[in-house]
Amino acid sequence: MKVYLSGEIHTDWREQIIDGAKGLDVSFSAPVTDHAASDDCGVAILGPEGDKFWHDRKGAQMNAIRTRKGIEDADIVVVRFGDQYKQWNAAFDAGYAAALGKSLVILHGPDHAHALKEVDAAALAVAREPAQVVQILKYVLTGSLPS
Amino acid sequence: MKVYLSGEIHTDWREQIIDGAKGLDVSFSAPVTDHAASDDCGVAILGPEGDKFWHDRKGAQMNAIRTRKGIEDADIVVVRFGDQYKQWNAAFDAGYAAALGKSLVILHGPDHAHALKEVDAAALAVAREPAQVVQILKYVLTGSLPS
Amino acid sequence: MKVYLSGEIHTDWREQIIDGAKGLDVSFSAPVTDHAASDDCGVAILGPEGDKFWHDRKGAQMNAIRTRKGIEDADIVVVRFGDQYKQWNAAFDAGYAAALGKSLVILHGPDHAHALKEVDAAALAVAREPAQVVQILKYVLTGSLPS
Amino acid sequence: MKVYLSGEIHTDWREQIIDGAKGLDVSFSAPVTDHAASDDCGVAILGPEGDKFWHDRKGAQMNAIRTRKGIEDADIVVVRFGDQYKQWNAAFDAGYAAALGKSLVILHGPDHAHALKEVDAAALAVAREPAQVVQILKYVLTGSLPS
Amino acid sequence: MKVYLSGEIHTDWREQIIDGAKGLDVSFSAPVTDHAASDDCGVAILGPEGDKFWHDRKGAQMNAIRTRKGIEDADIVVVRFGDQYKQWNAAFDAGYAAALGKSLVILHGPDHAHALKEVDAAALAVAREPAQVVQILKYVLTGSLPS
Amino acid sequence: MKVYLSGEIHTDWREQIIDGAKGLDVSFSAPVTDHAASDDCGVAILGPEGDKFWHDRKGAQMNAIRTRKGIEDADIVVVRFGDQYKQWNAAFDAGYAAALGKSLVILHGPDHAHALKEVDAAALAVAREPAQVVQILKYVLTGSLPS
Amino acid sequence: MKVYLSGEIHTDWREQIIDGAKGLDVSFSAPVTDHAASDDCGVAILGPEGDKFWHDRKGAQMNAIRTRKGIEDADIVVVRFGDQYKQWNAAFDAGYAAALGKSLVILHGPDHAHALKEVDAAALAVAREPAQVVQILKYVLTGSLPS
Amino acid sequence: MKVYLSGEIHTDWREQIIDGAKGLDVSFSAPVTDHAASDDCGVAILGPEGDKFWHDRKGAQMNAIRTRKGIEDADIVVVRFGDQYKQWNAAFDAGYAAALGKSLVILHGPDHAHALKEVDAAALAVAREPAQVVQILKYVLTGSLPS
Repeated sequence: MKVYLSGEIHTDWREQIIDGAKGLDVSFSAPVTDHAASDDCGVAILGPEGDKFWHDRKGAQMNAIRTRKGIEDADIVVVRFGDQYKQWNAAFDAGYAAALGKSLVILHGPDHAHALKEVDAAALAVAREPAQVVQILKYVLTGSLPS
Repeated sequence: MKVYLSGEIHTDWREQIIDGAKGLDVSFSAPVTDHAASDDCGVAILGPEGDKFWHDRKGAQMNAIRTRKGIEDADIVVVRFGDQYKQWNAAFDAGYAAALGKSLVILHGPDHAHALKEVDAAALAVAREPAQVVQILKYVLTGSLPS
Repeated sequence: MKVYLSGEIHTDWREQIIDGAKGLDVSFSAPVTDHAASDDCGVAILGPEGDKFWHDRKGAQMNAIRTRKGIEDADIVVVRFGDQYKQWNAAFDAGYAAALGKSLVILHGPDHAHALKEVDAAALAVAREPAQVVQILKYVLTGSLPS
Repeated sequence: MKVYLSGEIHTDWREQIIDGAKGLDVSFSAPVTDHAASDDCGVAILGPEGDKFWHDRKGAQMNAIRTRKGIEDADIVVVRFGDQYKQWNAAFDAGYAAALGKSLVILHGPDHAHALKEVDAAALAVAREPAQVVQILKYVLTGSLPS
Repeated sequence: MKVYLSGEIHTDWREQIIDGAKGLDVSFSAPVTDHAASDDCGVAILGPEGDKFWHDRKGAQMNAIRTRKGIEDADIVVVRFGDQYKQWNAAFDAGYAAALGKSLVILHGPDHAHALKEVDAAALAVAREPAQVVQILKYVLTGSLPS
Repeated sequence: MKVYLSGEIHTDWREQIIDGAKGLDVSFSAPVTDHAASDDCGVAILGPEGDKFWHDRKGAQMNAIRTRKGIEDADIVVVRFGDQYKQWNAAFDAGYAAALGKSLVILHGPDHAHALKEVDAAALAVAREPAQVVQILKYVLTGSLPS
Repeated sequence: MKVYLSGEIHTDWREQIIDGAKGLDVSFSAPVTDHAASDDCGVAILGPEGDKFWHDRKGAQMNAIRTRKGIEDADIVVVRFGDQYKQWNAAFDAGYAAALGKSLVILHGPDHAHALKEVDAAALAVAREPAQVVQILKYVLTGSLPS
Repeated sequence: MKVYLSGEIHTDWREQIIDGAKGLDVSFSAPVTDHAASDDCGVAILGPEGDKFWHDRKGAQMNAIRTRKGIEDADIVVVRFGDQYKQWNAAFDAGYAAALGKSLVILHGPDHAHALKEVDAAALAVAREPAQVVQILKYVLTGSLPS
C-alpha cells in the first residue's frame, strides 16, 4: 500500500504515522517539508528572479514534480489541515487526489469541520489524530481493529 | 466555450464576468451561491441530522452533484479567492480541475499570491480583476485584445 | 442534466420522478421495464434456446446495449431498491456507475439500510421517496429548496 | 496474476480456492471477512455514532479503501453469491469490476441463475464450485486442463 | 443512438438495416464502400507510389481517418462477415471496438460460427440476418419486440 | 467533422482549406494567427513583465487555453510546417495530438521530409498542398475522389 | 519489455522469436497454443454444452481471460498471420491492441499484403520472418543493428 | 523515479546527467542516439526502400517503439534543444509527453527562449545546463538543494 502524506508541515504528524505503521506493508511519500528549501528551490537551482511572483512560481512548479508523482502513485492520500495558515495547497492536493479516484483520508481538528465539509465529503475517512490514521492503515491491510 | 465559476460567493464577481462576456459564445455554470441553501440543502431534502458533521456531509455531497458536473463539463475553470475565510472548497475545486486537465484561471488579490503559489502554478492565467477574465475569454474566443 | 433511472420495475417510481421533474432541464433514460419483453428479447429476436441459462444470457446481453449506454451517458444515476426480490442487477448498475464516477442517488426504504450500506456509501444522496429525488434534481439545477 | 475474491463470507470458498491454487503464480486479495470487524471498523477507529446509518457509513467507507484497491489492482475478480442474504455489495463489486474492464468470474449455485443473469452476462466465466475457479486459474496460467 | 456498420461491402446489408430502421432515432456511419475508391484514395490524392505496399498503406491510412471516427463515435458497432474473402479489416474493427468498450453486434452466417468464436464472444449479440439487427435497434430504443 | 489547423501563420493555407471545404460538414478551429496579438496577449491583459521570458510565458499560457481546446475537440489535426522558422510549437502540437489519438495530417514541402520523419510517421496522411487537405476532407466525408 | 505473441499456432514462429531473443530483457506471453485445449477449455471446466455455439462461447471467453491480460500488459504486440485459415482472432487481437495504443508488429508473407493493408497500416513494423522480429527487439532494446 | 532523456544527440548532455545522478534512485531511458543506426534501422531490418520517404518512415516507426515506451513509462521527460537543426522530433516528444501529463523539464540555451515559449510553457522547469537537471532530480528525490 502506497500512502502520500500531504498538508501541514509544522508538527510531527508524518513521523507519528510512519512510526506507528512500522511493520505494516506500507511505503510513504510526502512533499519536501523543509519550508525554506521548498520556497526557494526554484531560484536556487534555475537562477534568481526579481519578482516574487515568479520566484514562487519556479519553486511551486519544481515541487509539483515531486507532489504530482507522490499523489499519482498513491493508493491512499492523507491530507492534514493544521490550526494555522491558509493551507490552500493541502486542499488543492485533496481535490487533485479526489479527481484521480484516490482513497482520501482527511485529518483535522473539530474546529475546521464546517470549513472543510466539501473536502471531507470527498473522503473515505475523516480522522482527528495521527494515531487513527495508523489504525486505519492497520485495519485496511490486516483486518485488525485496535483492542 | 464552457466556463465554470468556482469559489468566493460574497461579491458580484460572477455577475461582472457574465455581464462582460455578453455577446461571446460562452456558457457559464457555477455552484449554488445562496449560502443558506447551500449549507442546508441536504437536511432540507433528505431529513434532519442531530450531528452537525452529518448535516454538513449531506449538504456537501448534494452540492457535489452540481459542482462535479460543472467542473467536468467545463473547458475553463475560473476559481476566485476572496479576502476572507478559508475557502478550502475553492482550492479543492482548483485541484480537481487541474487533475482533469482543465484550463485553470485563478482570480485573487496580490495579498494571497504567496499562499496560493501552488494553485497559481497549475493555472494558465492568474488575474486580479473579473474584467481581466472577461478579456481572457474575449481573446481566447475572438483573438481580440483590449484596446 | 441526464438522469438514468435504474432498478425496481414493479411500482411507478419512475413516473413519479419524471412527472415531478416536468419543467426542469432533465432528460431521463431507463431500462426496458416491460418484464416479459426484457426477459425474452434475446430469443425473440435471435432465436430460441433450449437451455434457460443461454435464453437468459441472450436477453441480458441485449438489454445491456441499452443499459450501458444509459449509464455511460448519464450525469446522475438513480438506483431504486424495492421491498422484494434480489435486485442484483440494480446493485450491479450502482457499482458500474460508481466505477465510472457518476453521481449516484440511491432510493430505498429504511429496512434495507444495513444491507445496502456499501452501495449507499458510494452515493452522493440516499433518499426514501421519489419526491425527494425530484427535489434533489430541482435543487441541483436551480438552487431552489422545497418550501 | 492478481485475483480478488469478492462476496459471500460465511463459507470457506476463499480458502478452497487459495489452497487449490498453491503452486500457481497467483496472488489473492479479498475484503475483510471478519463480519463484526467489517461492520464496526468505522466507529471503532473514528469514534461512535448515535445513528446506525452513519455507523454503517463510516464502516462501509473504511472498507472501501481496501476493496477498491483490491478490485482495481486485480486481473480477475471472482464474485461469489451464497444461498442467503441480499449480498448487494457482491453485485456492486461485480458492476464496479465490469466497468473497469476486469475479467469477471461469477460463482453461484443453479438456483440463482435467473436472478443473476445480468451479472453473469458481464462475466467471462460462470462457475458453480470453487474447484472450477481453481481449474480456470490453472488453465489460464498454464494451459493445462483437468484430467 | 449512433451505429457504425463495419465489414462486408459486396451485398446490400447496410441498406437493409438503414431502411429497416427508418423512423428510429438512429444515425448510421460506415466506411467508404466504393471498393475502387477505397483502394486508391491514398495515391489519387497524395500522389502515386511505385510499390503496391505503400500504395495500399496510403489508402488504408486515409480510410482510417474515417473508420476510426466512425467507431469512436458509435454507441453500437455492427460488424458483418460475408461468405468470401479474408475480411481481416472487419475483425480488426471488431477488436478495436471491443477495446473501446463499444456494444458489438456481429452479423454472419452459421458456417463462420467456429472461426468467429473469439469475435462473437466479445459481442452483445450475434445475428444472422440484417433484419435481426433492425429488430435489435428497435428493441433497444423502444422496448418493442417483433410481433 | 472537427478540424484544427495548427502551425505556420505567414501564408494563407488556412483560408485555402476553409474555402475549399465549403459545403462540407466541417467546422474549423485554429490558434490566434495575429502574430503580435499572440505574442503580447498575456501582458496586454494581465499586466507587463520586465523579463521577456515571463512576458512570453504569460502569452504562451493564455494561447494554450485556446489551442488545447482546439486540439482536444478535433477529430483531425492538420499541422503545417512552412519554409522558415523553428516552428517548434507546430511540432509540439503534433505530438500533443498524437498522444491523444487524433487523426494527424501533416502538410509540408519536400525539403522538410527528412527532418519531419518522426512527425510524419505519426500521421495518417502527409500532404504537400492545402488543396490535398481539402481533397482528404472531401473523401473522408463523402467518399468522392478528385476527378 | 513485455511482448505478446498473437496469431497463428501451427508453426514454431513463437519458439524462433523466444529463442532468438535469449539474453535480451524481454518477457513473452501468448495465448494457449494447444488447439484442442483451447477449443474445449470452457466445457472441460464448466460443463458440457449441447449446442456447439455455446461450447465455443464458453471456451472463447475463458481464453479471453488470458489473451486480454497478455495484450493489456504488453508493450509490443506481435501478430502473425499464416497461410491458412481465417485467423479472425488474430486480426481481432490486432485491432484490440491498436485501440489500446500498443506498439504493433505484424508478421506475414507477401501474399497477404493487400488483404492485411488496414492491419498493417496500424502497425509500427511489418515483418516477413520471425528473425526480423528478433532483430527489431534487439534494436529497440540495445540500439544494435544486425551486422 | 523514471526519467526519459529526449532530444539533441550531438553533445554529451545525457552522460552528464546520468553521471551527475549517480547514487540517486533514478533510472534513465533515451532514444537510440547512434545517428546512422537510427536513420537506417527500418531498412536494415525490414528490407531496403527505393524511395527515401519510406526509408525514413520505416526507421521512424521502428524508433517509435522505443521512444513511445520511454515516454509513457517516464515520470519526468527531459527534452534538450541544441543550437542546430530543426529538432522537430524533440518538440514532438515534448508535446506527446505534455498530453500524457508527464512532468516536463526543458533544457536549452537562452537564444531559443522565444522560439520555445509554447514548449517551455508546458514545462515544470526550464534549465540551461545539464547540471541543473541533476540538481532538480536531487532536490525532487531528496529535498536537498545545491550548497
